[in-house]
Amino acid sequence: MDIQSLLEEIAGSVRPVAAAGEVADYIPGLSSVSADHFGICVATADGEIYGAGEWTSKFSIQSISKVFSLGLVLAGDGDRIWQRVFREPSGTPFNSLVQLESEEGIPRNPFINAGALVVTDRLITLTGDAGAAVRDLLRRESGNPDVAVDPLVAASEAEYGHRNSSLAHLLASYGNLENPVDLVLEQYFDQCALEMSCRDLAVGARFLSRNGVAADGSQFLSSSQTKRINAVMLTCGTYDAAGEFAYRVGLPGKSGVGGGIVAVVPGRCTICVWSPGLSKSGNSLAGMAALDEFTTRTGWSIF
Amino acid sequence: MDIQSLLEEIAGSVRPVAAAGEVADYIPGLSSVSADHFGICVATADGEIYGAGEWTSKFSIQSISKVFSLGLVLAGDGDRIWQRVFREPSGTPFNSLVQLESEEGIPRNPFINAGALVVTDRLITLTGDAGAAVRDLLRRESGNPDVAVDPLVAASEAEYGHRNSSLAHLLASYGNLENPVDLVLEQYFDQCALEMSCRDLAVGARFLSRNGVAADGSQFLSSSQTKRINAVMLTCGTYDAAGEFAYRVGLPGKSGVGGGIVAVVPGRCTICVWSPGLSKSGNSLAGMAALDEFTTRTGWSIF
Amino acid sequence: MDIQSLLEEIAGSVRPVAAAGEVADYIPGLSSVSADHFGICVATADGEIYGAGEWTSKFSIQSISKVFSLGLVLAGDGDRIWQRVFREPSGTPFNSLVQLESEEGIPRNPFINAGALVVTDRLITLTGDAGAAVRDLLRRESGNPDVAVDPLVAASEAEYGHRNSSLAHLLASYGNLENPVDLVLEQYFDQCALEMSCRDLAVGARFLSRNGVAADGSQFLSSSQTKRINAVMLTCGTYDAAGEFAYRVGLPGKSGVGGGIVAVVPGRCTICVWSPGLSKSGNSLAGMAALDEFTTRTGWSIF
Amino acid sequence: MDIQSLLEEIAGSVRPVAAAGEVADYIPGLSSVSADHFGICVATADGEIYGAGEWTSKFSIQSISKVFSLGLVLAGDGDRIWQRVFREPSGTPFNSLVQLESEEGIPRNPFINAGALVVTDRLITLTGDAGAAVRDLLRRESGNPDVAVDPLVAASEAEYGHRNSSLAHLLASYGNLENPVDLVLEQYFDQCALEMSCRDLAVGARFLSRNGVAADGSQFLSSSQTKRINAVMLTCGTYDAAGEFAYRVGLPGKSGVGGGIVAVVPGRCTICVWSPGLSKSGNSLAGMAALDEFTTRTGWSIF
Repeated sequence: MDIQSLLEEIAGSVRPVAAAGEVADYIPGLSSVSADHFGICVATADGEIYGAGEWTSKFSIQSISKVFSLGLVLAGDGDRIWQRVFREPSGTPFNSLVQLESEEGIPRNPFINAGALVVTDRLITLTGDAGAAVRDLLRRESGNPDVAVDPLVAASEAEYGHRNSSLAHLLASYGNLENPVDLVLEQYFDQCALEMSCRDLAVGARFLSRNGVAADGSQFLSSSQTKRINAVMLTCGTYDAAGEFAYRVGLPGKSGVGGGIVAVVPGRCTICVWSPGLSKSGNSLAGMAALDEFTTRTGWSIF
Repeated sequence: MDIQSLLEEIAGSVRPVAAAGEVADYIPGLSSVSADHFGICVATADGEIYGAGEWTSKFSIQSISKVFSLGLVLAGDGDRIWQRVFREPSGTPFNSLVQLESEEGIPRNPFINAGALVVTDRLITLTGDAGAAVRDLLRRESGNPDVAVDPLVAASEAEYGHRNSSLAHLLASYGNLENPVDLVLEQYFDQCALEMSCRDLAVGARFLSRNGVAADGSQFLSSSQTKRINAVMLTCGTYDAAGEFAYRVGLPGKSGVGGGIVAVVPGRCTICVWSPGLSKSGNSLAGMAALDEFTTRTGWSIF
Repeated sequence: MDIQSLLEEIAGSVRPVAAAGEVADYIPGLSSVSADHFGICVATADGEIYGAGEWTSKFSIQSISKVFSLGLVLAGDGDRIWQRVFREPSGTPFNSLVQLESEEGIPRNPFINAGALVVTDRLITLTGDAGAAVRDLLRRESGNPDVAVDPLVAASEAEYGHRNSSLAHLLASYGNLENPVDLVLEQYFDQCALEMSCRDLAVGARFLSRNGVAADGSQFLSSSQTKRINAVMLTCGTYDAAGEFAYRVGLPGKSGVGGGIVAVVPGRCTICVWSPGLSKSGNSLAGMAALDEFTTRTGWSIF
Repeated sequence: MDIQSLLEEIAGSVRPVAAAGEVADYIPGLSSVSADHFGICVATADGEIYGAGEWTSKFSIQSISKVFSLGLVLAGDGDRIWQRVFREPSGTPFNSLVQLESEEGIPRNPFINAGALVVTDRLITLTGDAGAAVRDLLRRESGNPDVAVDPLVAASEAEYGHRNSSLAHLLASYGNLENPVDLVLEQYFDQCALEMSCRDLAVGARFLSRNGVAADGSQFLSSSQTKRINAVMLTCGTYDAAGEFAYRVGLPGKSGVGGGIVAVVPGRCTICVWSPGLSKSGNSLAGMAALDEFTTRTGWSIF
């Protein structure tokens, strides 16, 4: 398989799709991006890197950060987090309050916003600075010391993030936050506002395809923990389209409203695609199409 | 009908019920009160006042304040508020977020917390200080210039009010607040934390039994507006027990978690009962029993 | 007050509204009626009858029948029915399954379809034939021995009534039916398919304005039972528009998708309006407008 | 890896767990089975068969049948079924009506009861007899011509199946059934009431581990269709515990309330476990534990 040629073909065929999506408009920092960007990068478990399109351009990683904060909490704290957050698909749009209320403050999974707030809260307790912990992990794993927050996006999140504030106060009302609401929100927004390229994200997530082995060869997560993060990505990683993603792409994946998606072929590689035009389910339209084509052409579905 | 004797009989017969209820425990300022207090006052439309039990003791009026802020907004602004809040029973517990989400930020009615936050927000815009406006109305109407906030309760509300903060941020996320979230919350808590006696509340609400005529003889609300506030009280005034209250008591009424209930016999009188022990639905247990007995004995149900 | 002239004025002013509504289309037997009919009748507690428009034309009473089956069950069985059905407003559209599921088979009130199926089930147990019991009550009270089922509508209900079948089976799954599902459905459809005129319904419901005294002077229901039926009508009688109805009309009322509404002025009269064009909430559009005008002009709101 | 020894070890270690579960009690035909049975069988893609415990005892396959009816519909009809049923996790208990109502008659996925009724309905249209079609497929694929319905269970389903009747009528009310409700229910119950052993089910499902190749070497399903059934099993196959199953077991799997679970290791084998004691989520308690241990010991998770 000539991966480089394949990525270039995919970049050519899916770019027209990108224009059909809608760029996220809930914060000004995201809505100013044009829909028709497209980039893709594959980072293999044994160290090769392939890219096509705008694969070195930076974008807002948004909810993709949730994979890394979860990894840090599992690495630091083992399975304790599962007493404060479930790991079931939500079956409702990604930031719904309904479930949180009917299940008394235990979020359905760590990849919906409520769940990620709980994970961030725990990471603050473990490290003192959750935003810095995620940023430093991504710097180390991607090998790019310049990974940083986009201050415009971070300010937008804080200013317009009433919905996340609502979730955080609701979690606090159920006693499911250890730290002050404002601190948790600030550090949550800091993670979401990290700017990275497809290259940096594909390389930075590579431990997920290598049984938890970090860039420096150390065991960041156990093999079992890594499989389990991948399992949660598959069942919960793409908002209310997890079934669709599993059906069409057949890989664990985590998307963000900035238009990025990171997917994992266990034992083989990680893939990061980026295109800001979103489908109704909040996932990158061209990104989904690219991953669909990638697994169809390579046969690298996990099923 | 000898009202004074009737009230004394009721006070005697329902006091034992009081001990069976649970005092509200969601804020420290409320939970320190003993359950077995009981007071009742009747203020007739033509100026007589009767009371029994602890009818001159002060308690936290909590959600009963919502009747008065709604009155002020209708008086100042006419029917405009109904574009921002519905007037249907909620069918779910009193501070549920579910409905607010499924109906895109329009609260079901002005007497659930979300709706009262919207009313408070409007009252801030109309008067500059919603807390002071409600307090001053109650001073004027009750004739007691000492009506004031209990600072301990107000501080408790602010510290422990995560659920109301959650609601306010959710309203803001739907664009249904005109003023900053923190200002709306502060003035909402100020209203809820007013301390009053059964006497002051029964007298203070007398305009509801007099087609809107205020204590000074002026027309505070039109006859039609007054009837409509009474209608909203009947269908929405007692959380998820509005049907039960209509069935057993048969009067428009508004309760608060401080244990007070104000009820209206149109054209005839207002009644205020207080007993801090609450039923599961959040209404005063002995208060409901007292009103039930009152309407059974007087035949003054509206049905 | 010259009631006759008033009714004629109302008939003139609201008829144009009728055309704006939508005729119920869920069964063929109802959808063939034109929207722009209008009739109104007032039957006073002391025996006078006034009418205007098509007040002697027959229409399908549909859910209005639920008031009479509830009355028969309360008369025959006292308060026992309240162990099998709540009396709270539903807060959701009139035939929702959601509530029934979350509250484990206890319908929210006797006027939503699920609740009426439970009431019908009990009436079958009490009388052997619930359809005949309701029909005979209405013949007796209206003085019209020809009150009968429209066989076309009854057949339509049975053929297209999948939603009611779904509700009945769900009730059975929770053990909240005493009789076979098919029997309950058949007799429920029989009540709904009764054909009556405004005159017959206004006269037939007169016991609700007379503290339960029947046409023959006997006490069909106690005064307390009558007040309580009126209370349930006010809080639950007009589907998801009970708050709106209380606010605008200010009377206990029960509507049907055939376009009829029966309202009660306790101690004074009953009113029946009919116009088949419905609002989104399933209530007669011109009927609501006529009742609104009636209570505004007469001042006969209960508030 | 000595699979035979592994299965025997697992059978020994998990049997004590079995007693902790609750046998399904919603129909008499199921509730008479003792909880502490346990059997396990592995059928490899290249034809080997291993078993331990009561792996040749027959049990009621219940919802496991849904995998086979879905396979037959996809084989006969391609992707058309996805216009009538979604393929997203439900996020609510397995037979909830809530989702069906809020999404207007389109079931969330083909493995909840509502979705399986739609699949059965389509299979009736395609074959004339859905029950026979599933039975014959399982006879062919398992090589056991005696696979048949347990008549006691089938009769129980029909008699006590009010909840499925409720679902079927609700689907019909939305126009999402092509055949009469009673026919669809009868053939749905017929599939659920099939009796099979772990051996027959593991062998009978082997096409799922062989890219769709049937027992006779023909291509029953395309490779892509097979992957997609596996994907739907992973995200939706174990009721409200799909996330938990993916996390702990890491394989596509489908469970039934009879206590069976079929899991697939793509390219390698199928596994069937049986133990009638269920967890709260309706999945076999010892079965889950056995599969957890199996994938932990073999490392054969797909993640």
